[in-house]
Amino acid sequence: MNFADRLNNAIKIKGSAICVGFDPVLSRIPAEIVKKANDEHGFTLEAAGAAISEFGRAIFEEVVDHAPVVKLQLAYFEQYGLPGMKAFSELCQYAKELGLLVIADGKRNDIDSTAEAYANAYLGKTELFGNSEFVHHIDALTVTPYLGYDGIKPFLKVCREFDKGVFVLVKTSNPSSGDFQDRITEDSVRNFEYIANFVDSWGADDLGESNYSFVGAVCGATYPKDLVKLRGIMPNTIFLVPGYGAQGGQAEDLKGIFDDDGLGAIVNSSRGIIYAYETATDLSYREATRNAVLAMKEDLKKARL
Amino acid sequence: MNFADRLNNAIKIKGSAICVGFDPVLSRIPAEIVKKANDEHGFTLEAAGAAISEFGRAIFEEVVDHAPVVKLQLAYFEQYGLPGMKAFSELCQYAKELGLLVIADGKRNDIDSTAEAYANAYLGKTELFGNSEFVHHIDALTVTPYLGYDGIKPFLKVCREFDKGVFVLVKTSNPSSGDFQDRITEDSVRNFEYIANFVDSWGADDLGESNYSFVGAVCGATYPKDLVKLRGIMPNTIFLVPGYGAQGGQAEDLKGIFDDDGLGAIVNSSRGIIYAYETATDLSYREATRNAVLAMKEDLKKARL
Repeated sequence: MNFADRLNNAIKIKGSAICVGFDPVLSRIPAEIVKKANDEHGFTLEAAGAAISEFGRAIFEEVVDHAPVVKLQLAYFEQYGLPGMKAFSELCQYAKELGLLVIADGKRNDIDSTAEAYANAYLGKTELFGNSEFVHHIDALTVTPYLGYDGIKPFLKVCREFDKGVFVLVKTSNPSSGDFQDRITEDSVRNFEYIANFVDSWGADDLGESNYSFVGAVCGATYPKDLVKLRGIMPNTIFLVPGYGAQGGQAEDLKGIFDDDGLGAIVNSSRGIIYAYETATDLSYREATRNAVLAMKEDLKKARL
Repeated sequence: MNFADRLNNAIKIKGSAICVGFDPVLSRIPAEIVKKANDEHGFTLEAAGAAISEFGRAIFEEVVDHAPVVKLQLAYFEQYGLPGMKAFSELCQYAKELGLLVIADGKRNDIDSTAEAYANAYLGKTELFGNSEFVHHIDALTVTPYLGYDGIKPFLKVCREFDKGVFVLVKTSNPSSGDFQDRITEDSVRNFEYIANFVDSWGADDLGESNYSFVGAVCGATYPKDLVKLRGIMPNTIFLVPGYGAQGGQAEDLKGIFDDDGLGAIVNSSRGIIYAYETATDLSYREATRNAVLAMKEDLKKARL
């Protein structure tokens, strides 16, 4: 089934469009988990990997009833070397076993055969001595469009073959996203609008039953006016919306990103959910996580009023 | 010592500005290496990692006398999962031991603390239970500028602290790089020229003794007119030039990228060197590699005539 259909179905089943971002920073992992990892593995990268893996499993277990999708930020895993990447791979697998959809947030980008290698690594299969196998179990990957269509085409091919998805960076949530993305170009459109037109066209031939394509777009919650504009340019594109919560985006800022059935977008929160326990000191970290995701589920209803 | 100075010194010592790109594709690794890996590890990802590692070591040994720098393309390692990344890390270490400078071609990009995690992973140190350690041994990383200054700043901080470098994608060598990079924006400059101005300013406060900054730029050999223009915009920027050889760029296309001392740029060749043995069937793969790098060294002299 087309990735967009799988995602929209999951949104319906969970009754929410929450994407839980998992950005593991060792110094913010609950002390009880870190202690156990240190007891078993000392103060090594292996201990870091073990702590991240245990923390991630617990987070996924607490959010699975209310969130259709989790997003694992590759940078935080790569930071811990091979044990970090081992934790990444295990957590993708575990999330899949729980029935969560998995986005790898790697913002990969390159050309031709190199982009194909990234596509194989994260979405498709790697050729191995005449056979081929999945290296990770991931449903979608974020990609950066700076290199043009050459750099996107190999991902689309793999998505088509394995029913996977990509989310192309269009308008990011950070304060200086405008440095470059907001530059006004020929025809008086801004760079990000120009990219949005590309994204719409890249997905146009591959709409699923829910009328969305597997070519999604990253559009930040912190620029609400641009969100509305972007929905106009990309009516059949799944939006992955970062910037809600810790970065300042509000549910009210998200009006117009969902269709009449509440489909077509997922809203990411990372720190606001997985580190909720830091400010909810009377709760266990599992309870704090659960409460945070439930509060977000309730809050997001405002985006549809 | 500032990364640009280290690189320029290495160019002087080796008498060449060659960057050997190592893009390992299993099906193109010499049969004798693959057989040995299969004998030891079967037809597994571990065998792939072992074959890549042995091939890379041999390539680096053959090119070290004539090339100051090697560039490892992360996509090809990530494609082989954990054993691939193990090979990546071992090869970075081995190249360093041989005295080569090492560029990780990962085209990483993200914002704030996430960009910082990438910077820690590849250039700096990762915090680990109150201590910190290098996860890999790499001198410079390629980065993609789509997210603006937020996404670059953390890399610059780490470069400054550990004398490392970045190469920011400016004008890439692929046929469709113009899709986006050539769009004409405000003030009648193209996107890539606008980025080039940023790159020049990002490095301006950190010039080394050779008068170059640790903030380099990726500028493709396949667009020679743009190369000249870019050198004008970025006089103190080290150019990493892909697209020579297999992609069609000629030495004659590179006039003007070097300064009067032959410094300030490195020219990458990947497939043309590491897979030279495929068409030089009367030579061992080691001999073919050595011949190819020597031929390139000779050819590049035309860029300075």
